[in-house]
Amino acid sequence: MKYGYGIDLGGTTVKLAFFDRQGTMLQKWEIPTRTENGGENILPDIAAAVKAHIAQEHIDPKDIIGLGIGVPGPVDGQGVVNQCVNLGWGRFNVSQTLSSLTGFPVCAGNDANVAALGEYWKGGAQGYENMMMITLGTGVGSGIVIDGRLVHGAQGAAGEVGHMVINPAETEVTTSGNCGTVEQYCSATGVVLLAKRALAAGGNSVLREKKNFTCKDVFDAAAEGDDLAAQVLEQVYNYLGLFLAAVCCTLNPEAVVLGGGVSRAGMPLLDGVRRYFDKYAFSAVKNVRFFLASLGNDAGAYGAFKLALSLFDK
Amino acid sequence: MKYGYGIDLGGTTVKLAFFDRQGTMLQKWEIPTRTENGGENILPDIAAAVKAHIAQEHIDPKDIIGLGIGVPGPVDGQGVVNQCVNLGWGRFNVSQTLSSLTGFPVCAGNDANVAALGEYWKGGAQGYENMMMITLGTGVGSGIVIDGRLVHGAQGAAGEVGHMVINPAETEVTTSGNCGTVEQYCSATGVVLLAKRALAAGGNSVLREKKNFTCKDVFDAAAEGDDLAAQVLEQVYNYLGLFLAAVCCTLNPEAVVLGGGVSRAGMPLLDGVRRYFDKYAFSAVKNVRFFLASLGNDAGAYGAFKLALSLFDK
Repeated sequence: MKYGYGIDLGGTTVKLAFFDRQGTMLQKWEIPTRTENGGENILPDIAAAVKAHIAQEHIDPKDIIGLGIGVPGPVDGQGVVNQCVNLGWGRFNVSQTLSSLTGFPVCAGNDANVAALGEYWKGGAQGYENMMMITLGTGVGSGIVIDGRLVHGAQGAAGEVGHMVINPAETEVTTSGNCGTVEQYCSATGVVLLAKRALAAGGNSVLREKKNFTCKDVFDAAAEGDDLAAQVLEQVYNYLGLFLAAVCCTLNPEAVVLGGGVSRAGMPLLDGVRRYFDKYAFSAVKNVRFFLASLGNDAGAYGAFKLALSLFDK
Repeated sequence: MKYGYGIDLGGTTVKLAFFDRQGTMLQKWEIPTRTENGGENILPDIAAAVKAHIAQEHIDPKDIIGLGIGVPGPVDGQGVVNQCVNLGWGRFNVSQTLSSLTGFPVCAGNDANVAALGEYWKGGAQGYENMMMITLGTGVGSGIVIDGRLVHGAQGAAGEVGHMVINPAETEVTTSGNCGTVEQYCSATGVVLLAKRALAAGGNSVLREKKNFTCKDVFDAAAEGDDLAAQVLEQVYNYLGLFLAAVCCTLNPEAVVLGGGVSRAGMPLLDGVRRYFDKYAFSAVKNVRFFLASLGNDAGAYGAFKLALSLFDK
């Protein structure tokens, strides 16, 4: 058995990648995610795409190790998802279903967990057996690797750090029903929220002239010397540092990788987070290294294939 | 090999226990911890106690599986401690040193981690492969078990949740150098601190008549209808609930065990913590069960022997 697939299932597109056993990505492509009718077409579409690829490339099905798939919701150790709101899915076993559809072994995991596994295997945290990846995107998710193994948690919800409450004084309720969560301030949406609040409180800023500014606009404005934008980012770094200090007190990882759209801000983000992390973190856990994610949008596919490999290599 | 020792090394006494392979505690006793001269006598004293026991009970040394020991400080996966302030110890390999002194294999771990392993193995969280034990004593520590294995962390500092900052607005600095930590409010010392602050702010309370009241006095006063004491405990439950919600968002455990002196408050503590936990926790992690520790002061000895067993059984 020589080859396998790593699949990153998102709310709008499915990223598929074809790997050799060593983890070289040989090909990648995308198909749309059809979420209508409770997302009933999603797994059949993926199975069809895999079968078409096998036929087109004249691959012997006996050479296929299996499929790994990352899905946007909690997944337990057996591959059971429990509500993927973006996909319209309820509760069922993704691994078994996709395995029946394709005839190959399948291993499913949460998308943020799988991305962490990808960065651990082939990305920014290679060689760090105890690591975390924080994905700062539209929301905030994370994946945790301990002693080289992914942590799933009792209901597949390990790493749901975006829902951690870090400011109990907050009054605006988030979609998850809580107030003052990491996601509320540190996601791309959160950065914009904090900037809007700063503008509403008065103060000059180039952001005031833009109608629908983005997280990137806030980082760009700060880089160009905009005081209000810079202060907003200090707030974000403060929350990120506080939250990462809490997580590192719990797990004492060797490395933390920052990924997702917000992480495209690069070194200013890493420096800002480190500054506040050092303020809040217990001395015994301060040796942690911070990295930027290096696999970009491919982390999920790498991690999904690794998930498949690690199970079938047992 | 039929027998082994579980040793819980504290700042004032060393608790030793003799176990059979199945984990039945056959005997237990204590010796003082001699911390003078950088704690140089501590391990020789333990070795002498073990040897004396073997001679006295006519045990064949070939029947001894090994020794497990919990120590009050960070211990990495190889048994290296890195400063145990209470013992006067710097950096050295506890497992190797005690093994040389006794001639038996030794496995060392952090005391709070080892107590968690004890509660997982024989105490309040049996059968829960993903669990945490929080020790609310003079300080606050914890131990984390994932998929049935203890989490050590990169520098042996996993589970140092007592140093997690939960109130960045705090101005009084703790001994760890941070402000607003879990330990500052939720340890036995912390409960007294919050009560003293409430008294200083005015308000009637039976506590005002006591010169040096304890954490137990605060719980007792609240149970007898003292409003100020009850409000102080609400603050404590609020901080505990907030912090446990953060930890459970990270790890999604099946069970959390509360131990240490503060946990002797019993069900009112468990109910209070649950109330605030439910307020702050993300819905996907709310299924966690809370238990009171059931092994009392023996948790460390049970866990230490289990640590030894789990290594030598590999």
